[in-house]
Amino acid sequence: MKALKKQLDELKKLKFNSYGKDFLLTWDRSEQELRAVVSLAELFSEMHKAGKSFKTFDTGLAISIFRDNSTRTRFSFASAANALGLGLADLDEGKSQIAHGETVRETANMISFMAEVIGIRDDMYLGEGNKYMREVSAAVQEGFEKGVLHQRPNVINLQCDIDHPTQAMADLAHLKNHFGSLEQLRGKKIAMSWAYSPSYGKPLSVPQGIIGLMTRFGMNVTLAHPEGYGLIPDVVEVAKKNAAASGGKFETVTSMEDSFRDADIVYPKSWAPYGVMQRRTPLLQQGDHVGLKALEKECLANNARFKNWECDEKKMKLTRGGEALYMHCLPADISGVSCAQGEVSAGVFEKYRIATYREASFKPFVIAAMIYLARVKSPLITLGKLIK
Amino acid sequence: MKALKKQLDELKKLKFNSYGKDFLLTWDRSEQELRAVVSLAELFSEMHKAGKSFKTFDTGLAISIFRDNSTRTRFSFASAANALGLGLADLDEGKSQIAHGETVRETANMISFMAEVIGIRDDMYLGEGNKYMREVSAAVQEGFEKGVLHQRPNVINLQCDIDHPTQAMADLAHLKNHFGSLEQLRGKKIAMSWAYSPSYGKPLSVPQGIIGLMTRFGMNVTLAHPEGYGLIPDVVEVAKKNAAASGGKFETVTSMEDSFRDADIVYPKSWAPYGVMQRRTPLLQQGDHVGLKALEKECLANNARFKNWECDEKKMKLTRGGEALYMHCLPADISGVSCAQGEVSAGVFEKYRIATYREASFKPFVIAAMIYLARVKSPLITLGKLIK
Amino acid sequence: MKALKKQLDELKKLKFNSYGKDFLLTWDRSEQELRAVVSLAELFSEMHKAGKSFKTFDTGLAISIFRDNSTRTRFSFASAANALGLGLADLDEGKSQIAHGETVRETANMISFMAEVIGIRDDMYLGEGNKYMREVSAAVQEGFEKGVLHQRPNVINLQCDIDHPTQAMADLAHLKNHFGSLEQLRGKKIAMSWAYSPSYGKPLSVPQGIIGLMTRFGMNVTLAHPEGYGLIPDVVEVAKKNAAASGGKFETVTSMEDSFRDADIVYPKSWAPYGVMQRRTPLLQQGDHVGLKALEKECLANNARFKNWECDEKKMKLTRGGEALYMHCLPADISGVSCAQGEVSAGVFEKYRIATYREASFKPFVIAAMIYLARVKSPLITLGKLIK
Repeated sequence: MKALKKQLDELKKLKFNSYGKDFLLTWDRSEQELRAVVSLAELFSEMHKAGKSFKTFDTGLAISIFRDNSTRTRFSFASAANALGLGLADLDEGKSQIAHGETVRETANMISFMAEVIGIRDDMYLGEGNKYMREVSAAVQEGFEKGVLHQRPNVINLQCDIDHPTQAMADLAHLKNHFGSLEQLRGKKIAMSWAYSPSYGKPLSVPQGIIGLMTRFGMNVTLAHPEGYGLIPDVVEVAKKNAAASGGKFETVTSMEDSFRDADIVYPKSWAPYGVMQRRTPLLQQGDHVGLKALEKECLANNARFKNWECDEKKMKLTRGGEALYMHCLPADISGVSCAQGEVSAGVFEKYRIATYREASFKPFVIAAMIYLARVKSPLITLGKLIK
Repeated sequence: MKALKKQLDELKKLKFNSYGKDFLLTWDRSEQELRAVVSLAELFSEMHKAGKSFKTFDTGLAISIFRDNSTRTRFSFASAANALGLGLADLDEGKSQIAHGETVRETANMISFMAEVIGIRDDMYLGEGNKYMREVSAAVQEGFEKGVLHQRPNVINLQCDIDHPTQAMADLAHLKNHFGSLEQLRGKKIAMSWAYSPSYGKPLSVPQGIIGLMTRFGMNVTLAHPEGYGLIPDVVEVAKKNAAASGGKFETVTSMEDSFRDADIVYPKSWAPYGVMQRRTPLLQQGDHVGLKALEKECLANNARFKNWECDEKKMKLTRGGEALYMHCLPADISGVSCAQGEVSAGVFEKYRIATYREASFKPFVIAAMIYLARVKSPLITLGKLIK
Repeated sequence: MKALKKQLDELKKLKFNSYGKDFLLTWDRSEQELRAVVSLAELFSEMHKAGKSFKTFDTGLAISIFRDNSTRTRFSFASAANALGLGLADLDEGKSQIAHGETVRETANMISFMAEVIGIRDDMYLGEGNKYMREVSAAVQEGFEKGVLHQRPNVINLQCDIDHPTQAMADLAHLKNHFGSLEQLRGKKIAMSWAYSPSYGKPLSVPQGIIGLMTRFGMNVTLAHPEGYGLIPDVVEVAKKNAAASGGKFETVTSMEDSFRDADIVYPKSWAPYGVMQRRTPLLQQGDHVGLKALEKECLANNARFKNWECDEKKMKLTRGGEALYMHCLPADISGVSCAQGEVSAGVFEKYRIATYREASFKPFVIAAMIYLARVKSPLITLGKLIK
């Protein structure tokens, strides 16, 4: 109870108003709003640990739209919705009439009559995912303004082509928890590094989310990848500006080793180069299987030139005291476990395995906090009642 | 609060007893029962708008069985169940053992031990959908009488081969809302017209539902379709009898223009002719893909003769003051938007787009009202408590 | 209310502590624990009949993992979860990232952050199903001990390669209900007999569950099957030991008639021989369709030698007074109904059809009791409050 009140006090010191806002990109939100999400996620986690319910809604739907496979985020969203008292309704596009020429704005309204929140994963097509979320958002806004919807549900980005805010925010909560406070992150070096994987086409949203968010808190963010494996240039610009504004640093290097040197945190993770994703999107949209196969072959051959981009014991030794915190959004490609050779050696992964589970454990509470802050008009007053 | 009490008073004036009854066809139910559904749907809608919960159940399941794709009705049913406090359980026949020779009466009982309501969509096979619902109904009745089921769940028709009562009732609520009262509908002309579509095999249940229901309220119902595009003859008979009994009118014409002339409401929508559906059902049941393909080709060629059956600006000018209310169950085939040429021109649809969303918005509340009236023994007393 | 208090008193007399325990095999649990499940299932059933809620949780997830088709168990689990106040979350492996080399221990933790219970059906691969459940169990135990999970969800076996405890316990509750008490079962003869079916590959878990459980209560259990259709030898050993310990009997015969003679209960049900399942498992794992087809052909030919293993009127006459209780886990292969010739004649099945529905009706309450006893620290105190 005492711990809960302390966290509530922390929250009370922040200046934020997230009521009625979608959560689409972390860089759309003020630093105070981001801090509020983290603090509330921690508070919810503590309440859950103490067996205290934070059920806020009597009824209402949390709608999920997954346009790509998902385990972690799917269950995190389901957990968050359930904990808040919302019923989960998944829009399975295969079982709907959407294929029959129905427009996004129509569907968005049709499913939203009793919806509080719409969580969307759409990360396959570069230039499409975030755009789709904004279309849904505009559609329910119109429906609300025209009196079709009694309430305007908020959209939460469960991973798009640009950002993966529920992951990045859970990662931030994990870092806060690990280092003691957000203030402690100031000046800490985090290496967001490309890593080798025997698969291709992995989204850019995780590395982009990390460099876009961690630069907000004065961290020293180093992005590492082989030549030609760049991220969306606009997002790299965002990271640069964030670093400048927060008193942090942002640089790009072309060696995993360079990024690991003296790093406090390493985040080695594979992704497909921006250029490849640009070529892949029209092929996917046209269903060009031959073209996709050829592109895959070319990319895997190219990837294979960088098999040494593996987070192994030797590279970990380069980090601060040889003891940097290893992070991953999971599932990782673990050499000798889930593939012959991958992003991380079995030894390094096993050392940090439980830590990565803990990292993931923040996600349901982060999502619950995002929903709560978007949907509850007087969040602090209601929280006070929930805690009592 | 005042508005809610007024609507509760309206409900109190009606004489109805829907407790324990399935909702399979609107023409199985008394006019007072239908009025009660509409009034309660409006009341629930007002409560939702005011942020007042109408959660009625502590626990219990609302089971859905969708034998055809659905977005609107699926989410409406899910919304209604959630708002009343029921948990949703979808029977996905692909994941069940039903294929293994299990009988309908067995399955119906196996899923119903804690069920309050079973919503079924089964609209593909002429002569099958409503029959299946009645089999489920008879099965749970037997299970209840034999003491296998503690309570007898009610079946709600979420669209069959004959009627689409949740759609027709939502349409009625929309008309009541638009014109001010059910009494205002008396003498109003509604044109339920066939319209061209580049697809074929669309169910008959919507036009049948409309002519079967709107004739109950003294409306002037005009059914329009090309020669050979008739509905199930028995349902047309129902519409005739209803019109005679309610002091309304019912006629059939073979021109969209004729039906639109001086119409207060137009409902242009494609459907497959009864004769085609009769030929299609055995082909579907036998999985005769060649026969189905041939029938489709023949029908599309026949449809193409009636491409001028499009609801466009010119035809809308024929309606009362050129300002008839356009209705559609959605999704509509919109010329130049969802197809090259379809049921409605882009201009007409856009003018009424928000109105069609509003029309759809009544469905979750209509379904909630149907469930509530079937499952709550003393509906008015319980409602009084909910409102307080 | 009086009936409820009587059953609560019955429960109070039992000595059990099931808190925090998985339910994987009935023979892992003490007789008093099994009695508690049955008594509580009956109590929940009576409460449900009386319209009294036994909602225990405010929020929390009940996760289901179905690796094989299911209707009865799926809806029983959903019903139990809903009745207790838990939200259902199904892990659909096809929609998750599990295929991408993710380990069981990782997935188990990723889905469990807010889970109270994980129900698993995995009955296809001999030597795999129960093992998988124990892996999930060990994984969440590790997650809990390492502080990743705030609570340690319990695993409930919804059918594996070895046992089908929710079915066997529902069967036991049905027998208690039919004969008046568990004491009345002492000395009663139950014939668990193989029966002919035109399909092959049916799991062994039901007959194994029956012989493993009914031998605990002093019953005279006769297992009957053709030569070569044996069960897992270890489970047969368990049954022998149980019978010796409880003062019951266990014997194996090779004739359906012999097993039926003077039986009080008959349970005729098809299964694939242990030897066949042993050969089938590696073929399934290798996706060897040719090998599977050849094995199926061989087995069906072998099965066909035993078409006379049908539970018909003539064989039923051999039972005690010709009136043994017929049991089946459903769906049964009914001759002339769901197949040309099968496990049971249409006449016998129809006579007992409603009884088999009643048998099935205990399953949701048994599952609710299993969850309740595993998750509630002071089950009797909490129950007392629920009843009041």
